[in-house]
Amino acid sequence: MTQPAPIERPPRFDAAFHAQLEQLCRWRRDVRRFRSEPLDPGLLDRLIRLALLSPSVGNSQPWRFVKVDDAHRRAGVRASFVTCNQAALATYEGERAALYARLKLAGLDQAPVHLAVFADSATGLGGGLGRRTMPETLTWSVVGAVQTLWLAARAHGVGVGWVSILDPAEVRSILSVPDAWSLVAYLCIGWPEEEHTDPELHRAGWQPRVEDLHRVVVQR
Amino acid sequence: MTQPAPIERPPRFDAAFHAQLEQLCRWRRDVRRFRSEPLDPGLLDRLIRLALLSPSVGNSQPWRFVKVDDAHRRAGVRASFVTCNQAALATYEGERAALYARLKLAGLDQAPVHLAVFADSATGLGGGLGRRTMPETLTWSVVGAVQTLWLAARAHGVGVGWVSILDPAEVRSILSVPDAWSLVAYLCIGWPEEEHTDPELHRAGWQPRVEDLHRVVVQR
Repeated sequence: MTQPAPIERPPRFDAAFHAQLEQLCRWRRDVRRFRSEPLDPGLLDRLIRLALLSPSVGNSQPWRFVKVDDAHRRAGVRASFVTCNQAALATYEGERAALYARLKLAGLDQAPVHLAVFADSATGLGGGLGRRTMPETLTWSVVGAVQTLWLAARAHGVGVGWVSILDPAEVRSILSVPDAWSLVAYLCIGWPEEEHTDPELHRAGWQPRVEDLHRVVVQR
Repeated sequence: MTQPAPIERPPRFDAAFHAQLEQLCRWRRDVRRFRSEPLDPGLLDRLIRLALLSPSVGNSQPWRFVKVDDAHRRAGVRASFVTCNQAALATYEGERAALYARLKLAGLDQAPVHLAVFADSATGLGGGLGRRTMPETLTWSVVGAVQTLWLAARAHGVGVGWVSILDPAEVRSILSVPDAWSLVAYLCIGWPEEEHTDPELHRAGWQPRVEDLHRVVVQR
């Protein structure tokens, strides 16, 4: 299993690549409206393989991917979403609630691919390194992998929507995964109906864009 | 503040870009050994700007970046690391502990840039959308931004090392940030001493590389 890494020359990324990477980040969107055409399974595997190159605390590699193809399991997840969404709706009033409903927060019904991503707290890798004082870093490693997958997907024109209006314990049960696995992301994946750089929530009038610079503080 | 987005053509990323993106992911490494040359501040700002294009739950944009240039604050963070690292060392025995010490887990002394990244739970944006059942998604949004920054850095040849052996509350106090800000990442950033595709922890013999495919499950 352990292979010495081949000697390779570090790549140099030029200005054209930098510009493309910026375009990739700008055009990566949370996609909720999908076309129904299936995704080539080989392409999905390719996206996952790229995600596996993400960093993880102590090299623990705690990510676990579950492709949910089974119709009954999908229906179970959908039901969990509907319940949680109704509860969420109840916390908003009037116009805001109506808007919230219209946002169509889940592409669950349209997306050809459902991919659940878990963090395995029982991972045998990493020996606990680096997560004694910040144990959440195990789960965070999985979040980074999801972000990598998201960018990789967009590079191939594939849309990803992250559904967080779910009961994580219920999803774990529906998908029959080990207790040590905690849900990080339930992803809807497929070809987007349309593409745009403005977030779905801006388009729907949820909130305006904000200026970015106030979020950086310098301590000299 | 709200501007209609200009009409733009979605970019198409070709096979050459896909190959470069894969190289970028393979050559992104957790860097602990830095050259001392400073980083152009404009470059750091550019990396942060790319990170700001990351997804966030309900578009809450909870990321807060603190550039720690002040020597006293840096010394405080270093002291927190030393204390936490000693406690961690005590949990490993003999050779493993010695190895652990040799790993030089922090580039804190060498890196020209220290960047602390926080999640602001008091963010006024997002209206709580999408995080009722999974409130951790607020923090996770910041993790995704860190991963974006990491890839952007590597695209410019810049190395990033994530220090997690810290007491997060102590770091918040040292950096005098609001109580509502929780520490996600303390990043050492600078020009790497050398570049390689194999993780630092593989090189140091912490653990072997593992096969990837067992981490994907298909439920039909």
